[in-house]
Amino acid sequence: MARTLHDLLAAFARHGGTPDGGVRRLAASAEDGAARDLLAAEIRRRGLGLAVDPIGNMFAMAGLVPSVREAVIVGSHLDSQPTGGRYDGTYGVLAGLLAVEAVAARAAAAPHAARRNLVLANWTNEEGARFQPSLTGSSVYAGTLPGPAAGDLVDGEGVRLAAALDAIGYRGEAPPSFEPARYVELHVEQGSRLEAGGIDIGVVTGAWAARKTSLVFHGEPSHTGPMPMERRRDALRAAARAIDLHYREIETSGTGAHASAARITVFPNSPNVTPSRVQVWFEFRHEDEAIACTLGDRFLAGAKSAVEPLGVGIEIAADERRGAAALDPHGAALALATARDLGFSAVSMKTVAGHDALALQRRVPSSLMFVPSRGGLSHNAAEFTDEAALDKGLAVLVELLWRMVTEAR
Amino acid sequence: MARTLHDLLAAFARHGGTPDGGVRRLAASAEDGAARDLLAAEIRRRGLGLAVDPIGNMFAMAGLVPSVREAVIVGSHLDSQPTGGRYDGTYGVLAGLLAVEAVAARAAAAPHAARRNLVLANWTNEEGARFQPSLTGSSVYAGTLPGPAAGDLVDGEGVRLAAALDAIGYRGEAPPSFEPARYVELHVEQGSRLEAGGIDIGVVTGAWAARKTSLVFHGEPSHTGPMPMERRRDALRAAARAIDLHYREIETSGTGAHASAARITVFPNSPNVTPSRVQVWFEFRHEDEAIACTLGDRFLAGAKSAVEPLGVGIEIAADERRGAAALDPHGAALALATARDLGFSAVSMKTVAGHDALALQRRVPSSLMFVPSRGGLSHNAAEFTDEAALDKGLAVLVELLWRMVTEAR
Repeated sequence: MARTLHDLLAAFARHGGTPDGGVRRLAASAEDGAARDLLAAEIRRRGLGLAVDPIGNMFAMAGLVPSVREAVIVGSHLDSQPTGGRYDGTYGVLAGLLAVEAVAARAAAAPHAARRNLVLANWTNEEGARFQPSLTGSSVYAGTLPGPAAGDLVDGEGVRLAAALDAIGYRGEAPPSFEPARYVELHVEQGSRLEAGGIDIGVVTGAWAARKTSLVFHGEPSHTGPMPMERRRDALRAAARAIDLHYREIETSGTGAHASAARITVFPNSPNVTPSRVQVWFEFRHEDEAIACTLGDRFLAGAKSAVEPLGVGIEIAADERRGAAALDPHGAALALATARDLGFSAVSMKTVAGHDALALQRRVPSSLMFVPSRGGLSHNAAEFTDEAALDKGLAVLVELLWRMVTEAR
Repeated sequence: MARTLHDLLAAFARHGGTPDGGVRRLAASAEDGAARDLLAAEIRRRGLGLAVDPIGNMFAMAGLVPSVREAVIVGSHLDSQPTGGRYDGTYGVLAGLLAVEAVAARAAAAPHAARRNLVLANWTNEEGARFQPSLTGSSVYAGTLPGPAAGDLVDGEGVRLAAALDAIGYRGEAPPSFEPARYVELHVEQGSRLEAGGIDIGVVTGAWAARKTSLVFHGEPSHTGPMPMERRRDALRAAARAIDLHYREIETSGTGAHASAARITVFPNSPNVTPSRVQVWFEFRHEDEAIACTLGDRFLAGAKSAVEPLGVGIEIAADERRGAAALDPHGAALALATARDLGFSAVSMKTVAGHDALALQRRVPSSLMFVPSRGGLSHNAAEFTDEAALDKGLAVLVELLWRMVTEAR
């Protein structure tokens, strides 16, 4: 089974593979479509049925107990960042596929042991690289994002997500008919705590809070040459000042918060026209939601007064607050016990990054496990986890899913 | 004749016209192609021959003295900024067209008066909005930019200028056979000195120097969530710090320099990936070339040390220096005298913005005249000059061209 996992990872890395060994597989792109086709083939090859919902989430059901509607879902996402690595969500989908196969075989050998079914899921646009916000498919499934609104999200070129899904043939009909009992996700850490501690498995108990605020800076176009400096209303000058302020405030806050401003659009973006409209996507992350929000509030007030003397106005285009969500405690305890029962070292930890499991916890008890990631590098072609570490994660996943489909509670 | 100028301005404003009354007619775009087709039709309607050179410059010759190769060129450019106004270069091209027609009629009525011919020119990509550097067609004609290199310029989508010209049918064969004796250009001021002084005509004697430096900031992609702040190498954070520094240095220099950073590209530009590659186009402008260069040197040194602590490197992608060029003194004196002879108020002045006349002065004695521009607004849909002021400019242009094609020297 182990060999199969690495063969599969290599096969999927070819869809959107970049010369530096990374992956560029934006949600609902042609590359994503090709990876989805390969997943669909692997699903059918294992005799599983495939369903696709209207936001493109893919579900493959192993009917361990045909009379029961209840199912444990395992999964992650195939989409990547423009500078993605080959593990990230793909590892969770492929380990999930093999775990479903292994658990189904075990169930067949032990009739009456399974009390519920098992479903593999591939969630649409987890990354939020092409369409914002991220965690799109899992949020729709969880009921926190209306499906039509998600379909209407547009990328930087004005393409609707629904149209992009249509183009690759993955805008489906309706959600499948199972009733979700639990969700489990396996992922690479994207941090270096497990590697630094020599630990095999991280069991995630909850997530940092995040505040994601997108600001539009409104200036006025003018010629960058003759227009007197004091009469310009330069939106990029204002945005640069705000970005600089943003990082200085995070540093001086001493809170240990993480922050970023990683996406910017500039209009008209010509060297000879003072920018008139600039949008920047800011993020504040902290374990404590109150601190993430306070930092955001303080920044907004500071940014407004910092750019006002430049004649530039600020409009809040989006202001999303993600609470410091806790994942299901029973699932976490079960995962920790399972890893240790198999002889692996395991710790409980928080995640800073968002994951589909966090979105799904709003609807169904959810669990998330990490394996080590070299140097904590992620969203980077050099992302790497060795085969032995990946295999340990898969082994824990198989045993955990077996316990979840068989446990009485 | 006056009526015709305003009809023509309105007709050309429809090609690339924007809902706010402005014009978006990027060089070698479909809109530029349509405006060029209209100009070609107007040229042919007046019985003039049309020639197009390999970089798309359009020439229309009035053969006042068929036996003579020498010609005075009058012209400007039809391309615009993304947020352009309807006057800008279009005024110079259309006033030039009508002036050629008027001077030809005058020459026909006064046989043997003309000593040289008259040519209308529309120069390719003056604006530099779609392809950098600006002043492309006039620089190729002047011999300071090799034609093949100009054809190989690529826009933000990777389209070559030569291919874009092919697509609209304006990549021509060879330069026409006349010998340029002088160049004259009429333009709106793009500043507010004439309006403030109630002056009809500005005669430009020279230009501010400019240094245009494009910097690439090299960071490393990583996840914007879990990656510890101190381990990130964020190219956009570095670029924002450099832009902020740039403006602070200009302000504190007390030199009266103009400066801008109006174009930026960010990779991968995803909200969840620390930007790894950012390019920013910086400009420094001052009447004194030494000051423009010193400001640029000081900024480069300051930016390097400011971003080094962020683990971000700076690469100089382009560093263009435009000297504080003087235009031809005889042409300026003639223009000033002509305007005053016609009863208009006129002053000599410098231009801050670049113009085709400045590029052409490297090959042929060149002259540039301004009419007032309301509020100095330019590269803006609200750019405006009233009809009477536009007509005065045209009247001076006709008389000046007449003197230039007839004068003995």
